[in-house]
Amino acid sequence: MKQKLIPAVMSGGSGTRLWPLSTDNAPKQFHALGSQQTLIQESVQRVIAIDGLEPLEPILICNRRHAAIVEQQMAQLGRSAQAVVLEPFGRNTAAVAVIAALVAEAADPEVLVLLMPADHVILDAEGFSATLARAAAVAQTHIVTFGVDPTVPETGYGYIEGGEVIDGTVRKVVRFAEKPDLETAKAYLASGRYLWNAGIFLFAPRVLLSEMERLAPEVVAASRLALDRARRSGVEIDLDEAAFAACPSISIDYALMEKTDRAAVAPIGVDWADVGSWSELWRLGPRDESGNFQRGDAVLIDTEDCLVWAGSKTVGVIGLKDLIVVQTEDAVVVLPRSRAQEVKQLLEQVKLLRGS
Amino acid sequence: MKQKLIPAVMSGGSGTRLWPLSTDNAPKQFHALGSQQTLIQESVQRVIAIDGLEPLEPILICNRRHAAIVEQQMAQLGRSAQAVVLEPFGRNTAAVAVIAALVAEAADPEVLVLLMPADHVILDAEGFSATLARAAAVAQTHIVTFGVDPTVPETGYGYIEGGEVIDGTVRKVVRFAEKPDLETAKAYLASGRYLWNAGIFLFAPRVLLSEMERLAPEVVAASRLALDRARRSGVEIDLDEAAFAACPSISIDYALMEKTDRAAVAPIGVDWADVGSWSELWRLGPRDESGNFQRGDAVLIDTEDCLVWAGSKTVGVIGLKDLIVVQTEDAVVVLPRSRAQEVKQLLEQVKLLRGS
Repeated sequence: MKQKLIPAVMSGGSGTRLWPLSTDNAPKQFHALGSQQTLIQESVQRVIAIDGLEPLEPILICNRRHAAIVEQQMAQLGRSAQAVVLEPFGRNTAAVAVIAALVAEAADPEVLVLLMPADHVILDAEGFSATLARAAAVAQTHIVTFGVDPTVPETGYGYIEGGEVIDGTVRKVVRFAEKPDLETAKAYLASGRYLWNAGIFLFAPRVLLSEMERLAPEVVAASRLALDRARRSGVEIDLDEAAFAACPSISIDYALMEKTDRAAVAPIGVDWADVGSWSELWRLGPRDESGNFQRGDAVLIDTEDCLVWAGSKTVGVIGLKDLIVVQTEDAVVVLPRSRAQEVKQLLEQVKLLRGS
Repeated sequence: MKQKLIPAVMSGGSGTRLWPLSTDNAPKQFHALGSQQTLIQESVQRVIAIDGLEPLEPILICNRRHAAIVEQQMAQLGRSAQAVVLEPFGRNTAAVAVIAALVAEAADPEVLVLLMPADHVILDAEGFSATLARAAAVAQTHIVTFGVDPTVPETGYGYIEGGEVIDGTVRKVVRFAEKPDLETAKAYLASGRYLWNAGIFLFAPRVLLSEMERLAPEVVAASRLALDRARRSGVEIDLDEAAFAACPSISIDYALMEKTDRAAVAPIGVDWADVGSWSELWRLGPRDESGNFQRGDAVLIDTEDCLVWAGSKTVGVIGLKDLIVVQTEDAVVVLPRSRAQEVKQLLEQVKLLRGS
């Protein structure tokens, strides 16, 4: 019999470093970056039926104000959802994991849950599903996290140290490491024991819930109450605000993964990206023969290694090198690729000036 | 008795190098560049009543499709016009001069006409009017053109060589010189005899018309007919298309000024600019202490010597140097200041892609 699996897609990111494309009303997961589909659509489509794996309709967890856009983007795919859980506000990933486990368990006690962020890019869906199928056996007893083989000493990601082999390529987790400095990142890379923390989790609801009960009982209590008292309408589950407000805001890594001895890690290759910034999107490509990433009605003359994003108007550039130029209905941003992280500061300054 | 004077403002320029601000539907003369007023509004307000000079309401000559925007911008000033002459198409400046002379003469045979482009910037209106008052005496017998004292060996302007003094600073014209190469421009500058051709003319209608009759009779005949057969409505004079089509398309410089022995030139100081390109606008200023020219909702971080024009949206930039960034409802343009002339090529490429 095939192992049933429910993708649980967390739409919690704000993606401020992709401003002005990513905004409060439509964060990056609702935009198409590398393909024709939006990131949340890609996430929902990610798990495909291969040998041993039977994906069910997804659970989507998003902010209440994104209910309409989530449902519209699912409708566009012709997909329905197991449930669309609406948060009145974010309470971090531990609460999301518990809620996903509770909703999934109610649907089918034997199902596995694949919890993943809505705003990542994974290019190799088939390879990913194959890894999932192998990790499913381990997920009967462990909470499996996924790790990406590091290719460079990246200082922008957290790392996971893998230890003893449990099954095939799946190992026990020795420890989670915060974003390292460059020297430490180089040592991690050289050791061959570390993977980038992709923030993706596979678990059986009963395993997740029993470990959470033990290590973060307040999260379980508040999440369960918010769910019990939720307003339900069709697939929508609108969490009770007062109950959810009492839930500690804590990440699944911190609440659970760093403490439990049931943490495992499965490698998922390298075709993964967080796409946290415009420079990462440029790296991800596709780029033309001059090294430019273009989108929309862009006209480039004598320009190299730039990202030119024409969201809704013509964007014409001449003689640029290593720059990011982004136009949306909201704003225009121009800055060097090397300073892409600073979009966040720019947005803060704009918000300050707008008095919002 | 004061000398009466009618400003005749030629709104013929297309200003393609100021795209995307300047467009076919609203060329640069209809935009505010350096001040709160648009260039055509500044042109109309340029001639002020000082000793010896009595400015009358202006004649405006523009393309038919700009009738509404011209009248709206005059209404905004609370000004009425002597006449708004609508051209079905451009027939260059000789025809415009003849039409202005005919319309002015009909209003008052003793009036002088100050013919000037709508798209230039002159910062010192009082100094300019004082020069006009002095040039008025010479204009009883000569066609007076105005020249700007060159400050650099500019290769983008035509030059006028001044000769024998007629009256005060007003001299006979020796010759008109085309845009020179750099070496020639340096020689002009060193000689002290050359002025930049500002494309501004002061004349008595009878002098202009008699010289034109002699040197370019076809221009006078066609213009007169186009005017006789024009549709008139209020101050609007809508030229007859068939008659005007027969008019040779020739500049006043070429048709008249280079041939007549009644050409004079009056110096108007240095506070003049053609503002033909974004880099010229940047030079004109105002610039902040970091050398940036900003307009609209622009947010600049760590940026130097740039022009950032936020036409209708927020434009945020980080870490730029010597760049032009322009946002309008039409398009976004980013390029080095040193390549500002190439906006024209960019526009051509955009039009090609749009199939227009």
